[in-house]
Amino acid sequence: MTGVKNMFMFEKPLGMVDTLPDLYEMKKQTRQSMTNTIEMWGFQFIETPTLEYYETVGVQSAILDQQLFKLLDQQGHTLVLRPDMTAPIARVAASKLYNSSYPIRLAYSANVFRAQQREGGRPAEFEQVGVELIGDGTTSADAETIALMIQTLKEAGLENFKIAIGHIEFGNALFKEVVGNQERADVLRRFLYEKNYVGYREHVKSLPLSSIDKERLLQLLNLRGGIEKVETARELVSSQQAIDSLDEITTLWSTLEAFGVTNYLKLDLNIVSHMSYYTGILYEVYADNVGFVIGNGGRYDHLFEKFNRAAPATGFGLHIDRIIEALNRTSDVKMECVIYSQERMPEAIAFTKERRAANKRVVMQEISGIKDVDAYTKQFEEVVYYIGSRKEEL
Amino acid sequence: MTGVKNMFMFEKPLGMVDTLPDLYEMKKQTRQSMTNTIEMWGFQFIETPTLEYYETVGVQSAILDQQLFKLLDQQGHTLVLRPDMTAPIARVAASKLYNSSYPIRLAYSANVFRAQQREGGRPAEFEQVGVELIGDGTTSADAETIALMIQTLKEAGLENFKIAIGHIEFGNALFKEVVGNQERADVLRRFLYEKNYVGYREHVKSLPLSSIDKERLLQLLNLRGGIEKVETARELVSSQQAIDSLDEITTLWSTLEAFGVTNYLKLDLNIVSHMSYYTGILYEVYADNVGFVIGNGGRYDHLFEKFNRAAPATGFGLHIDRIIEALNRTSDVKMECVIYSQERMPEAIAFTKERRAANKRVVMQEISGIKDVDAYTKQFEEVVYYIGSRKEEL
Repeated sequence: MTGVKNMFMFEKPLGMVDTLPDLYEMKKQTRQSMTNTIEMWGFQFIETPTLEYYETVGVQSAILDQQLFKLLDQQGHTLVLRPDMTAPIARVAASKLYNSSYPIRLAYSANVFRAQQREGGRPAEFEQVGVELIGDGTTSADAETIALMIQTLKEAGLENFKIAIGHIEFGNALFKEVVGNQERADVLRRFLYEKNYVGYREHVKSLPLSSIDKERLLQLLNLRGGIEKVETARELVSSQQAIDSLDEITTLWSTLEAFGVTNYLKLDLNIVSHMSYYTGILYEVYADNVGFVIGNGGRYDHLFEKFNRAAPATGFGLHIDRIIEALNRTSDVKMECVIYSQERMPEAIAFTKERRAANKRVVMQEISGIKDVDAYTKQFEEVVYYIGSRKEEL
Repeated sequence: MTGVKNMFMFEKPLGMVDTLPDLYEMKKQTRQSMTNTIEMWGFQFIETPTLEYYETVGVQSAILDQQLFKLLDQQGHTLVLRPDMTAPIARVAASKLYNSSYPIRLAYSANVFRAQQREGGRPAEFEQVGVELIGDGTTSADAETIALMIQTLKEAGLENFKIAIGHIEFGNALFKEVVGNQERADVLRRFLYEKNYVGYREHVKSLPLSSIDKERLLQLLNLRGGIEKVETARELVSSQQAIDSLDEITTLWSTLEAFGVTNYLKLDLNIVSHMSYYTGILYEVYADNVGFVIGNGGRYDHLFEKFNRAAPATGFGLHIDRIIEALNRTSDVKMECVIYSQERMPEAIAFTKERRAANKRVVMQEISGIKDVDAYTKQFEEVVYYIGSRKEEL
């Protein structure tokens, strides 16, 4: 067998990454504290397959079709690598857990897949830790998941983060009041979805509307800040739909006050997050020092209908790699090494056993298996030798 | 939006499974004790992408081409869902870890993928926990990984298991001595690979060989049992290659005696495990009560050449679902529930916080979010109510 002289041998597909020991350790510790918190709140973890039928999960997910990794199975069905965990969990709740009484609290810690178009873009595979609270339409359910998310981030070690909370129905109602038809509303929604506020402003100015109506649409962009902005918002709208959405936010806020977490909240009535997925309260999480979204969530009351088990639902997903980036910590795992020669192996085994029992990570290495002892031993905090006729410790 | 009236909505691709809460919990606990043991022995965990280039990892893996899940990426390259972790780890060791001094001890806990041809067959996605010790050609390295594997299984809670140990070169040498050419040897190897001993016997009888030579080939099947069978094996062969392989096994055994684990070993000189992957000592792990292979491993000294960083290597992979089946335990996670009405939420929050701090898993549920309280509360070990004007505990 000869080596393949091809640099391609070392490459990975677009957007795919290796996680080396230090980062792996950080991820493991962070995941452990996050999942532990979620378990204490009575959410039960499940695992679903990496591959799902396109018809079942691919079509129902919140992810754009062009971002799906698709393949054909040997029976000719189209499969997808799961792009999110919400649709697979809906499938499980509607099938295997059909006899479980609502509300059902499920959780996951899983890799999801989004095909990328270019080098240096977002990762094509990344881990999400999240929950779904299924079958409870109360605002208390939204509050619970938000409070849990905050607790989860705190237990992971994050302190400087904010949850921007909005309501999909407020914008929808305002657009209906001002521009009337769905198509025009979709254009406005897309600007918000893309967080293209300059484009939004210019588009509003170009619309054939009264200056008062234009001002109402522009004022929407100012509805970000403290909970008091709800009162400003009330002045912009008159429909029941809009008022209900603001009342719901007020109730949510006072519930989250009971949880003692309002210092992590801000209002943002511009959040769209997804073009047609969320149906009520929705939110995005930002870490102060990195400035990007590290997670999001909200209420999606229509997904379960598609799995023949209609139910309101709310949940969040956190992006663990981004949380670790925001934490900006390094792992400090130390290792020791016991280097031995064949004859003194029994001593080396006995000593190593002791050290491991004292909770030290210890490599046991026969000296003849090492090519360059100086280079090899650099990585260890401590090296003990059992070689030749006496024990020498360095 | 209306429900899709299609049973297909609840289906999963062939060989794919959901892991529900109880099994998830068992897997988590088992994985934790296994990976913790591996860490204490100084092996460092890494994670590699689920998708790899077919040319890089697919071709080099030990898995048959028809078992690969293949797809095309948007650049037209063929990708595979990793069928094992050994080839991806070789890729990492030869690229990202190029400057690390050998020996390198890496570990993984990852799902691997093998396409299945029919319903009710093996799982198409399953988790392996394993290690690779790269760059050390000594028998001590084989012994270390076997001792670690035994420790890992014991820490997982398994007691009744056996490691069947063989050497790929013994059979190869015997076949070369008796049947001469490679093609004939391959036929014999295939029978052993498929553990089709009846077919092997019949085939041997049909060969144009002397009765003495036929007897040598048939005697191979008896080389299973205690280490004393090595002496029987010596009588069947004369080539240096065969004698070296038996000497290596003897050395391995005495090393594993120093580790105090020979009670878990048996000799099996019929093991083939894979048609062209292993190059020396190789082994399979059986749990007594289930009778199937729960893991395997061995030395593969030629894989790294293909990644332009020639190195001897040895490692094992354990099949965590099969270990759990062998353990035959159930998880005993208990949950409590606090049911509250809106007005008494602050009391409920305070009480729940206390219980969680006492390490209890506690669901907090608003009463108006439950449709059927009787059905809902059945799942909990204890239920506490904060509803109406007084606190009532049941």
